[in-house]
Amino acid sequence: MADVHDSPTRESLHAELDQLFDILWPLPRSITGEGTRETLEHFASRMALKLGHVPSGSKAFDWFVPPVWRLRAARLTGPDGAVIADAATHNLAVVNYAEPVDAHLDLADLQPHLHSLPHLPDAIPYVTSYYQRRWGFCLPHAVRERLQPGTYHARIDSDFEGDGGVPFGHVLVPGERDTEIVLTSYVCHPQMANNELSGPLALLALYRLISAWPRRRYSYRFVLHPETIGAICFLSRFGEVLRTRAVAGAVLTCIGGPAPRLSYKVSRPGCSILDALVARRPDRFDQRPYDPSHGSDERQYGSPGFKLPIGQFCRTHYAAYAGYHNSLDTKEFMDIAQVVDSAMILDDTLRELELSGIYENLAPFGEPQLGRRGLYPSLNAGGLRGGDDFWTWQRQHERLMWILNGCDGQTRMSDIAQRAGFDVRDLDTTIAKLEEAGLLRLSDGPQGPAPWRP
Amino acid sequence: MADVHDSPTRESLHAELDQLFDILWPLPRSITGEGTRETLEHFASRMALKLGHVPSGSKAFDWFVPPVWRLRAARLTGPDGAVIADAATHNLAVVNYAEPVDAHLDLADLQPHLHSLPHLPDAIPYVTSYYQRRWGFCLPHAVRERLQPGTYHARIDSDFEGDGGVPFGHVLVPGERDTEIVLTSYVCHPQMANNELSGPLALLALYRLISAWPRRRYSYRFVLHPETIGAICFLSRFGEVLRTRAVAGAVLTCIGGPAPRLSYKVSRPGCSILDALVARRPDRFDQRPYDPSHGSDERQYGSPGFKLPIGQFCRTHYAAYAGYHNSLDTKEFMDIAQVVDSAMILDDTLRELELSGIYENLAPFGEPQLGRRGLYPSLNAGGLRGGDDFWTWQRQHERLMWILNGCDGQTRMSDIAQRAGFDVRDLDTTIAKLEEAGLLRLSDGPQGPAPWRP
Amino acid sequence: MADVHDSPTRESLHAELDQLFDILWPLPRSITGEGTRETLEHFASRMALKLGHVPSGSKAFDWFVPPVWRLRAARLTGPDGAVIADAATHNLAVVNYAEPVDAHLDLADLQPHLHSLPHLPDAIPYVTSYYQRRWGFCLPHAVRERLQPGTYHARIDSDFEGDGGVPFGHVLVPGERDTEIVLTSYVCHPQMANNELSGPLALLALYRLISAWPRRRYSYRFVLHPETIGAICFLSRFGEVLRTRAVAGAVLTCIGGPAPRLSYKVSRPGCSILDALVARRPDRFDQRPYDPSHGSDERQYGSPGFKLPIGQFCRTHYAAYAGYHNSLDTKEFMDIAQVVDSAMILDDTLRELELSGIYENLAPFGEPQLGRRGLYPSLNAGGLRGGDDFWTWQRQHERLMWILNGCDGQTRMSDIAQRAGFDVRDLDTTIAKLEEAGLLRLSDGPQGPAPWRP
Repeated sequence: MADVHDSPTRESLHAELDQLFDILWPLPRSITGEGTRETLEHFASRMALKLGHVPSGSKAFDWFVPPVWRLRAARLTGPDGAVIADAATHNLAVVNYAEPVDAHLDLADLQPHLHSLPHLPDAIPYVTSYYQRRWGFCLPHAVRERLQPGTYHARIDSDFEGDGGVPFGHVLVPGERDTEIVLTSYVCHPQMANNELSGPLALLALYRLISAWPRRRYSYRFVLHPETIGAICFLSRFGEVLRTRAVAGAVLTCIGGPAPRLSYKVSRPGCSILDALVARRPDRFDQRPYDPSHGSDERQYGSPGFKLPIGQFCRTHYAAYAGYHNSLDTKEFMDIAQVVDSAMILDDTLRELELSGIYENLAPFGEPQLGRRGLYPSLNAGGLRGGDDFWTWQRQHERLMWILNGCDGQTRMSDIAQRAGFDVRDLDTTIAKLEEAGLLRLSDGPQGPAPWRP
Repeated sequence: MADVHDSPTRESLHAELDQLFDILWPLPRSITGEGTRETLEHFASRMALKLGHVPSGSKAFDWFVPPVWRLRAARLTGPDGAVIADAATHNLAVVNYAEPVDAHLDLADLQPHLHSLPHLPDAIPYVTSYYQRRWGFCLPHAVRERLQPGTYHARIDSDFEGDGGVPFGHVLVPGERDTEIVLTSYVCHPQMANNELSGPLALLALYRLISAWPRRRYSYRFVLHPETIGAICFLSRFGEVLRTRAVAGAVLTCIGGPAPRLSYKVSRPGCSILDALVARRPDRFDQRPYDPSHGSDERQYGSPGFKLPIGQFCRTHYAAYAGYHNSLDTKEFMDIAQVVDSAMILDDTLRELELSGIYENLAPFGEPQLGRRGLYPSLNAGGLRGGDDFWTWQRQHERLMWILNGCDGQTRMSDIAQRAGFDVRDLDTTIAKLEEAGLLRLSDGPQGPAPWRP
Repeated sequence: MADVHDSPTRESLHAELDQLFDILWPLPRSITGEGTRETLEHFASRMALKLGHVPSGSKAFDWFVPPVWRLRAARLTGPDGAVIADAATHNLAVVNYAEPVDAHLDLADLQPHLHSLPHLPDAIPYVTSYYQRRWGFCLPHAVRERLQPGTYHARIDSDFEGDGGVPFGHVLVPGERDTEIVLTSYVCHPQMANNELSGPLALLALYRLISAWPRRRYSYRFVLHPETIGAICFLSRFGEVLRTRAVAGAVLTCIGGPAPRLSYKVSRPGCSILDALVARRPDRFDQRPYDPSHGSDERQYGSPGFKLPIGQFCRTHYAAYAGYHNSLDTKEFMDIAQVVDSAMILDDTLRELELSGIYENLAPFGEPQLGRRGLYPSLNAGGLRGGDDFWTWQRQHERLMWILNGCDGQTRMSDIAQRAGFDVRDLDTTIAKLEEAGLLRLSDGPQGPAPWRP
């Protein structure tokens, strides 16, 4: 059991995330390389992440892990010597994973190597070419339109000789049971805010909040890696662990920005405790169906070889803002306060999740003898009913009886509550009382009909 | 196979129950002790019950079995020597399981030991204190209100030294298969009628009726014991037998009284043949959902360690009459005729249940050769249709074909009938004909989707 | 893999079926004997059927296989020497399986041996007495009505001494997997067209069509035998093979005639890929529920010992035309063109079925690396969306991702398509592309929730 810390406040979280954002913003992230390693180390020092990587050139399931890309400089200079694009000014200025070049070319020959967005003339687009060697520069369309004929100097000082591979980091915050809730985000997009830093920052905030809980019934695993290939590499090392222990979870992506509400993309199995909990809270969450053709790493976690019950939380959806995948995705757009707010909502949701799972009645043959545990009155004067006290006691007693009868190791507390007409959040003290009496325990293993294979 | 007796009539049942009621009424029942033992012996001599008990001081699942309570006398005398309450006059006058006392006290000191019902000033309440030592008297509130200051003499001559424990009795009326239907009620409430004697008496009537059937496909187990602790003690000895063989059943409680209709509380699994049959007969039964926080021993039989498919039949519900758990629960209120009527309805219901279960086609590969068994015409002149005889034959033949095709050892006859558009009661002669031809047999074991573990 | 032939045309099929009809029409079919053997040999020479039989006198499940009936002549002559009925003129003139007779009788004594249809005075009825020895003649009611008193000569030259038994024939047209689709019809009715020859002829047409497919994922089994006893005999020899491999199929019966649409009787399990496919095509098929009391050999294939997922296709239903089981069931009524049309529709349906089953993603852990297979662009410029090409590519990509994610070896392609909002027929090129890339394969074994026992 991890130490119990003082529960962080909205203000303390805001301060920490704000400071960390500014450190992480300029780091040149990709799916391999220094920028990503440094980013992970910043989180590791705050969350006790264990770091690892899958080496370049090795195989991860169906994939060949790409080489490590090192970028030292990338600059495009005009006929008049003016700097047109420079990675030192903005990371997005160079195509991610660009091969080295040192060439003088005509504008016409240069054009196929330039990327810009006609519909967003002031934005620098985010362009990658991980698996085919290319070079190129990204620049505002307004700048590109003004380029004059003449000889340009394109120089990218990069190589693919770095040590390492595709990195990842994760930490398990242990609870009373080994059964895990998985929370994950990605680090690989350079200099973008909502669609990059919002997720890891919210993850850190949740780590702070959950670590401070007085008790955790489940264990909580926090995971960071590059998107897609990073998830595949992580699963190649820890997929079996997740398959054995994970009963719910979510990817955090685009978790900041101006949207007023969070939305949840249902996990592939579609029936985890988190899926069920979100479905009962339309007041709090919009829902999106599982879709393997769009989204983040729930696509990898939910692939048919794993079918992990991992959904996806997002706030301002990647399809819903112009700054997606370009330089308009800034700290101001993301808004640290919104990221903290998302984390607070998820913290509250996970507290409810702690009550919602499958418990076992540890004295399941007949009703247990409640009287000798002080849970039933010793004088039974059935005819003597009435009075406010009686009805209060009666209601408490009904909760207790429903929990004991319903907790057969197969049925979720949330479903027992629903059948009995209670809100699961009102069962917290009764659950705690029965746990304390040794009559109830959160079940190890599957927490519902999800395809969890022990 | 038990002997076949002449089927008892409504009149003969009424006479037997009426006489037995008067014998049982004054016996001082509790969860242990002489009154309950004698009550069980009266039933044993009529139903061939095998009697047993779980000894005081031993463990039954989570419970410590309480000591045997013996009561020799209990009398409260007033300052003027007048008898205020006397167990010899009414069993309810003393708190059930009262410890011994022989004390002279002021009215003020006596008051905490008195129990009465302000809203029912003429009724003596039923009060128990099985698991904590107490003494006390119960009396009409009207009497209590008139008590004058002065010194009272409270004398209870009781001890907890008796031999024995919590008793039970049961008998299996065998049928063609070992698969069991369980019918049970309780004996532990002294001098109450609807909420005590109505159940055992109805059980006896059903025993008489079912024993007289010309054949029984299922075996029928009749069980009597004190409520709650009695069920737990019985289950500690025979729970595995029930878990292996019981496919349906019901507790009978408050089965008399003025209510015009029977109601059925669905079993915990909710899908036994009896649950299904009752659900198809809204003309005959009201239904109540399973609720572990109120009711009778279906709570114990349905506890998560057993989940037995045992519901509960009742007529005038314990929550629906003022006399519940007090001295207004009399023979007149209960009404022997209503108890007999309940038994007759249940007899008819169980006859339908005999047809409703899962049968096996014993020649399941293709249609059997019906012609050589006289079940199909030898001349096939398909074009020569029409005429009343043809359509009657056709309808018979359709029944036969549906039964043969549907009876795969997994599907209930009631569901086959429903799919084919028949009433299961109209299939009785066809079923019997196929059984006689050796082509059909009631399946051993589970009779539907209930969680029956062989 | 069978050779690929040129796909037959509607015209070529019409010509072959028309010619074969005329050969088969006069053959005196029954459940045993020469006429049926010869009929099967004609199909064997066209479809490479393997022939077999279950010998007379042996047991097939619950049945005793009847002796071989041989008929040499059957003629009824009137008092004036006129021929009243003659099997040489029409096969239906003699009761099928008639015992020998050579007797001179009064009209009154003859009458019990005559069969006619008062409501269809010009039709000769079809009458059989397989399992009880009888003799008799069938004639138009108009002829019977004109019979004059006098002495008649009834002569049937038949015996039950022939070699053989109940015959059957079948052939497996192999596909890429051993999993089978079963198509079957019956041969046993003499000189009837819609309710006899339409089925086997449609089966031959389907054999021609399916054999010419460029590829078959499933294997296709074509089966012919007499109705009822023939199905039971065939199942006694090949039931286990079907139980292990058959995942869908249908009996073809009354598949010609004037009805504009085909109808499908759902298989007993009710959930095969064919059942599901038909249910999604109300534009093409009427549906009838499974009914074991009427119909053809789906009753035997669907008996509880087998529960094979074999439905029944029919065009002009046996209950829907006056000529059913009499001499009005002619070639003109049946109409070769309608039989060919039915076969073409079923061919198209089975092509859709090839796409509808359960496939396995062969690289199920995470998404496979599509880029190195040319299935994903190497340049990822997410911001650069828009344009018709993009949306076309996007839609293709979505199909690909849904297929890869959905194909977990448990889920039907038709259900994946439905969830993703595609028509399964639009997935054909994507499926083929993934099969070619070694990423996808039709699953061996069960193709859905049918009770298929490996």
